Amino acid sequence: MSRQSAPGTRLDPWFGAYANRTHGLKSSETRALFAVASRPEVVSLAGGMPYLDALPMDIIAKVTADLIATEGAVALQYGNGQGHPVLRGHISEVMAEEGIHSHPDDVVVTTGSQQALDLVTRIFINPGDVILAESPSYVGALSVFKSYEAWVEHVAMDSDGLMPEALQEAITRLKAEGRSIKFLYTIPTFHNPAGVTQPVERRAQVLDICRREKILVVEDNPYGMLAFDGSVTPAIRALDEDGVVYLGSFSKTLAPGYRVGWAVAPHAVREKLVLASEASILCPSHASQLSIATYLETCDWRGQIADYREVYRLRCEAMLGALAEYLPDCTWTVPKGGFYTWVTVPEGINTNAMLPRATTALVAYVSGTAFYADGQGSRHMRLSFCYPTPERIREGVRRLSGVLAKEVELVAMFGPHVPGQGRDVHFPAPDIA
Amino acid sequence: MSRQSAPGTRLDPWFGAYANRTHGLKSSETRALFAVASRPEVVSLAGGMPYLDALPMDIIAKVTADLIATEGAVALQYGNGQGHPVLRGHISEVMAEEGIHSHPDDVVVTTGSQQALDLVTRIFINPGDVILAESPSYVGALSVFKSYEAWVEHVAMDSDGLMPEALQEAITRLKAEGRSIKFLYTIPTFHNPAGVTQPVERRAQVLDICRREKILVVEDNPYGMLAFDGSVTPAIRALDEDGVVYLGSFSKTLAPGYRVGWAVAPHAVREKLVLASEASILCPSHASQLSIATYLETCDWRGQIADYREVYRLRCEAMLGALAEYLPDCTWTVPKGGFYTWVTVPEGINTNAMLPRATTALVAYVSGTAFYADGQGSRHMRLSFCYPTPERIREGVRRLSGVLAKEVELVAMFGPHVPGQGRDVHFPAPDIA
Repeated sequence: MSRQSAPGTRLDPWFGAYANRTHGLKSSETRALFAVASRPEVVSLAGGMPYLDALPMDIIAKVTADLIATEGAVALQYGNGQGHPVLRGHISEVMAEEGIHSHPDDVVVTTGSQQALDLVTRIFINPGDVILAESPSYVGALSVFKSYEAWVEHVAMDSDGLMPEALQEAITRLKAEGRSIKFLYTIPTFHNPAGVTQPVERRAQVLDICRREKILVVEDNPYGMLAFDGSVTPAIRALDEDGVVYLGSFSKTLAPGYRVGWAVAPHAVREKLVLASEASILCPSHASQLSIATYLETCDWRGQIADYREVYRLRCEAMLGALAEYLPDCTWTVPKGGFYTWVTVPEGINTNAMLPRATTALVAYVSGTAFYADGQGSRHMRLSFCYPTPERIREGVRRLSGVLAKEVELVAMFGPHVPGQGRDVHFPAPDIA
Repeated sequence: MSRQSAPGTRLDPWFGAYANRTHGLKSSETRALFAVASRPEVVSLAGGMPYLDALPMDIIAKVTADLIATEGAVALQYGNGQGHPVLRGHISEVMAEEGIHSHPDDVVVTTGSQQALDLVTRIFINPGDVILAESPSYVGALSVFKSYEAWVEHVAMDSDGLMPEALQEAITRLKAEGRSIKFLYTIPTFHNPAGVTQPVERRAQVLDICRREKILVVEDNPYGMLAFDGSVTPAIRALDEDGVVYLGSFSKTLAPGYRVGWAVAPHAVREKLVLASEASILCPSHASQLSIATYLETCDWRGQIADYREVYRLRCEAMLGALAEYLPDCTWTVPKGGFYTWVTVPEGINTNAMLPRATTALVAYVSGTAFYADGQGSRHMRLSFCYPTPERIREGVRRLSGVLAKEVELVAMFGPHVPGQGRDVHFPAPDIA
């Protein structure tokens, strides 16, 4: 019954049967890396894992046990497709902290905000439709967009985030070409990977453009409550209710292991999201939803987020200090919150080509190319300061400086690395350092 | 900033922007029903919710608390896209009870087996591709298939499940029409909704046909371990490794609130499933996965499943006794396990039209039409015996008999209900009673 064509090979008998969209599924650039980066001797500046040791595990253990012992028959049962009404109420309260006015009925609970992103893409994107996204943009979003055969058009950003004039130019040009632009995907606060934040005036400009051009805004905001100084920049959703789908998550403010995120959407869009989610997973986990609801009701979650902020502030400080000390020939963004800084390396150096040598030197990062749909980014890398301790961060950057120094020597000796051919790009690599 | 066209209306400003697939998303027939059926005065024979009061909640509470207190920083962290290796090992052991030989590397953990179904459909189906499915088939599968714009071809079944000759006939005809058949979706054991089980000889015949015709088999088996007598019918996957994607779930044997299911697939297909899942949700919930792993390691899960079997055996007995007593003019299938029986009502009666009158009489079921992609099924209904107590089941069927009696009177007076036009169907309604 073997369908293998020859001993020692393992061909795929179903190769001809896959859907068109499946041919776009490729192993992410970062996947193999994470296997390496998780070895304890490697300092990983690659992942976006929150530092969970800052959580009150004993308290969470106790409230979860109480929940199961007293309400297990509900907590372990099926729920409704939109999410538990009690948790949706809490989510509205959490968002109010960021200036967002919402009704629990507007909220759709998802399996992490990644599923929300999948659902939004699923309901809007036909193959070839255009999604506008920052240049660079979140790697996980790019992989969803690709899996629905969208065309991602990167729009330039600077140290104040997405540039309104570049957005307008892209829309005008694409519309002139007859392209169907479905939405703008944007991370205005503590951008992943760029680490920058868009001031509120610019958010209003972006919103004006999208409103005038009738383009939906999909605002992804997992890090918004993690400003190092505790301040809040109003979400785009706080400025407009009808033209924005907002994506939120407990992954960075509490813990990702529950896989609970959410979308807030205009009424009709929300209906479609719920139907698409029901088709996709029936309903989100009651166990996870009610664990979080119980936690929010019984614990000092605002205090815990304040603890997180302080942890990440110190780590960011360590990162920026180490960069200044060890990587004087690079430039980088200066985050005011979140998990990441975006580093630009000297001309001629290719961060993608350098990565194997970095892991050999026991330090890992994500190459900038992961954050572009079109092959750009090889002069950049994303460094995360969320997970390792400040001491490890310093050590990681120190190791990186050794790798970079050798790379500069190589370039001096053999000339710059010739990158692979990307598809045509319309915008220059971003100037965000 | 309002995009509403007139006061008092709420039009969708994004209507023109949706993807083609989105126009196929409709509120499920059963959704409004479940809102009614969840009222305590209604006897719901509609839902497929397991009876969780049979679970040892105190023990589950304790092992979950221990897990979080001792391994919280892992249990609440991101995991890998394929699922936690320890849980995948346990899943292999669970499947071994059903005669399935698998390696943990073959297993992909998903957000309920519904997500596994979504992923399989996503990687194989282009719009218009054909999926073969039993007549009737699982409502949740039909809604996934529709959301990917598949054409579902129903294949007749009888009291021994899917009929091999009907399968061969459908394949031959569809191939002659030049249609692209991507897979057979089948629930051979304790079928939802039909309640029947396919003998192993027939499974081998189905497998032979699919192998010869190079059609993948997608075997959905949430109820396989719930035979009332504890016996096991070998899964189709136990007979073939290369041509079968097997879908399993903890929702019916443990609890659905964790949303943990899985797929076992040939190597190359499994790779695609993992990539599609990563794009869709990044990774399944560590909290849920490790809760279940801990439960399986520390509790008598085989004994607990035996308890479930006994609960459902008694309820099925109550259901069949009540049907014999109260609905002598109907016919029904006699399940040997699982949650459902499939009832055929007298000619002229339309179960869909009758449903509002049934809920008024405080009893709920799912109309047969929910289980067809093509509008068939109005002479059938699915009755679930999993959730209400035996006494409530008897009372529910008693109420149903009153509703049916009035319906028969109506038909005698005004003639049969004229059903809406479905699309062309090639097979007669199944003869499975």
